[in-house]
Amino acid sequence: MDEFELINSYFKARASKRPEVVYGIGDDCACLHIPSEQDLLVSMDTLVADVHFLSTWDPYDIAYKAVMVNISDCAAMAAAPFAMMLALTIPQPDEYWLARFSEGLFDALELHHVALIGGDTTRGPLSVTLTVHGLAPQGQAVRRNGAKPGDLIYVSGALGLAAFGVNHLSAPDVLQSVHQPLIKKALHHPTPRTDMILLLREYASSAIDISDGLLADLNHLCQNSGLAAFIDMPSIPIHPILQHVQSSRQQALKFALTGGDDYELCFTIPSQQEESFLNAMKSSHMRCYQIGQMREGRGLYTLNNRRQYVQLGACGYQHFGQEND
Amino acid sequence: MDEFELINSYFKARASKRPEVVYGIGDDCACLHIPSEQDLLVSMDTLVADVHFLSTWDPYDIAYKAVMVNISDCAAMAAAPFAMMLALTIPQPDEYWLARFSEGLFDALELHHVALIGGDTTRGPLSVTLTVHGLAPQGQAVRRNGAKPGDLIYVSGALGLAAFGVNHLSAPDVLQSVHQPLIKKALHHPTPRTDMILLLREYASSAIDISDGLLADLNHLCQNSGLAAFIDMPSIPIHPILQHVQSSRQQALKFALTGGDDYELCFTIPSQQEESFLNAMKSSHMRCYQIGQMREGRGLYTLNNRRQYVQLGACGYQHFGQEND
Repeated sequence: MDEFELINSYFKARASKRPEVVYGIGDDCACLHIPSEQDLLVSMDTLVADVHFLSTWDPYDIAYKAVMVNISDCAAMAAAPFAMMLALTIPQPDEYWLARFSEGLFDALELHHVALIGGDTTRGPLSVTLTVHGLAPQGQAVRRNGAKPGDLIYVSGALGLAAFGVNHLSAPDVLQSVHQPLIKKALHHPTPRTDMILLLREYASSAIDISDGLLADLNHLCQNSGLAAFIDMPSIPIHPILQHVQSSRQQALKFALTGGDDYELCFTIPSQQEESFLNAMKSSHMRCYQIGQMREGRGLYTLNNRRQYVQLGACGYQHFGQEND
Repeated sequence: MDEFELINSYFKARASKRPEVVYGIGDDCACLHIPSEQDLLVSMDTLVADVHFLSTWDPYDIAYKAVMVNISDCAAMAAAPFAMMLALTIPQPDEYWLARFSEGLFDALELHHVALIGGDTTRGPLSVTLTVHGLAPQGQAVRRNGAKPGDLIYVSGALGLAAFGVNHLSAPDVLQSVHQPLIKKALHHPTPRTDMILLLREYASSAIDISDGLLADLNHLCQNSGLAAFIDMPSIPIHPILQHVQSSRQQALKFALTGGDDYELCFTIPSQQEESFLNAMKSSHMRCYQIGQMREGRGLYTLNNRRQYVQLGACGYQHFGQEND
C-alpha cells in the first residue's frame, strides 16, 4: 500500500466539511476562505515517540492527544479551532495501527468540529505533527504580552493529574485504584478548554495554556508582559485525586506546579473586572482559581514559611522546595 | 540551552514581517489577517533524515530544500506563498548545526518573501516539517481536477537532473565534472516555479508539482480529472546536462519520467488557449514544454516502437521500458 492509498483509505474518508474549508485533502494545498472580520490563528505541535508518548501506546490515544494538544493552543489564544493539517511519520504502513490512529484522530477532531484538510504521510521514526487553524474576531485573540501590574492570575482548573499519570500509571496501587480511569484520561485524553474562549475574549488581558507546567508557562506570561508574578501557594488547585493517591502534599504540589500536560489555561484578569468575571463564570457554571497577582518586576515569587517573598528560580519548584522544606 | 532559548536565538531574530502577519513567533499561535477577496492555500510537507535527505548533509541544504519543497506546493496551485511554520525535531541542540540550518532556512524564505511565523522545536530523530500558507485571488487557485479532454499537457522545465544527483552525486566522474555544481544545486537547492503563478492563474485548467516524478504526478492529474494522458515521449524535456553525463538516453529518459525532486510543474492548457498562452510565455521570456494531451479514459499512454498506444503501468516507466527496449 503506497502513501496515497494510505491517505485515501484512512484520512480522506472521514474528512468532514466546514464552511471555511473550500476544499481539503486531494490537491497540493488545501483551500480556506477566511471572513475578513476574523483573524486566523495558526499553531503547530510535534509529538515524538518515546519523548512525548510511548510507541506502545494505543494509536487511538496518540492521535487523540496530538489533536487535543494542538486545539489547546487555540483555546489559549481564545480562538475557535476549525481546520487541522496532519503530518504523520510511521516506520511502516500498518493497517491496524492506522485504523486505530485515524479513529482517535477523527473522534478528537469531531468533538471540536474541526475538519482535517490535508497533510503528509512519510516513512520514518514515529512522530505526529499537527497544524491547527482557528478563528477569532479581529483583534480579540488573547496574547501572552497583555498582562498589566495588578492583574489577577487565574488557572482554569485543577492541576497535576497528568504529570502524576506519567510517573505512576503503571504502579500496582494506581492500577488497582478506582481513580485509574480518570488518571489515564488526564494523561491520554486531555480536554482543551475551548469552553473558556468567550470568557477569555471578554475578560482576559493575557493567557497561555499549561503544557510545560504552571510555573514554566506562567513565567512565559511574565516574560512576554515584562512583569513579575506573585503566587499564593495555598491557592494552587491541586487535583483532588492527587490528594487521595499521593500521600505527600509537597509532592502533589510539585506535580501541580511543574508537571506538564495539564492543558488547563493560565490567564490574567484586570482587577477592576474581577467582579463581572466572577459573575460571568458563575452563570456559565465554570470554576477557575485565582492563584496570585501580576506586579512590576521580573520572575516568579512566593511567600516562604517566614512570610518573606522568595523568588522561584529557573528550575521553579526545586528552588521553591528548598526554601520551604 | 532549552527549547525556548533555541527558538529565540536562531529563529525569532531573523523572522521577517509581512502585511498579512499580525504577529508571529512568541505566542501559542501566530495571527494572520487574510483579505476577504483572497483564498488561503495551506500545505504541509515532512522531510525525514535518511529518507528524504542524508543526516550528513549540510544543515543549510536541509533547511533550504525543505522550504523550497513546500513553496513548490503553493506554486503548483498558483498561490503566492507568504508565511511558514517550522516543526524541527533534532536529536540534541547543536549550536553549529542550528546556526547553519537557520541560515539556509532564512535564505530560502527571504528569496520568496515568506515570513517565518512560528512552529515547534522538539527532541527526537532528525526531521523537518513545514506548513506553508499562500494566497490566491478567490477561486483562482489551480487544482488537479480541472483538466478537460483535449487539454494540452505541459511541463515547466527540463527534468531528471535531481534524480540523477541522488544516484550519482558521489560518483568520481561526476565529482570531477564541470556540471557537478548544477547537479548539486538541482538536488539541494531546487527552484520552485513561483514565476509561473500568474500564467497558471490565467491559462491552466489543472496543475501539480513534480515531486514524485512526472509519470506519478501526471497520473494524479489524470485521476483527479477523471481522464487519461497521452504522452509524446520524444517531447519529454530531458535535462541537457543529463545528455552529457548519462551515456544511455534510455536511462536519462527514465530519470526525467520517474525521478522525483524536480519541483517543476506539470499543467494543462485548454487547446483553444494555446496560442495566447504561447504568446504570454514568450513575452515573459519563459519556456515550457508540451508533452502530450488529455483524453477521455483512465491512465497514462504512449506510442511504442510499432506506433501502437500502450498503457504505462502502475510502475510507470518500467512497463514502458519493457515495451520499448
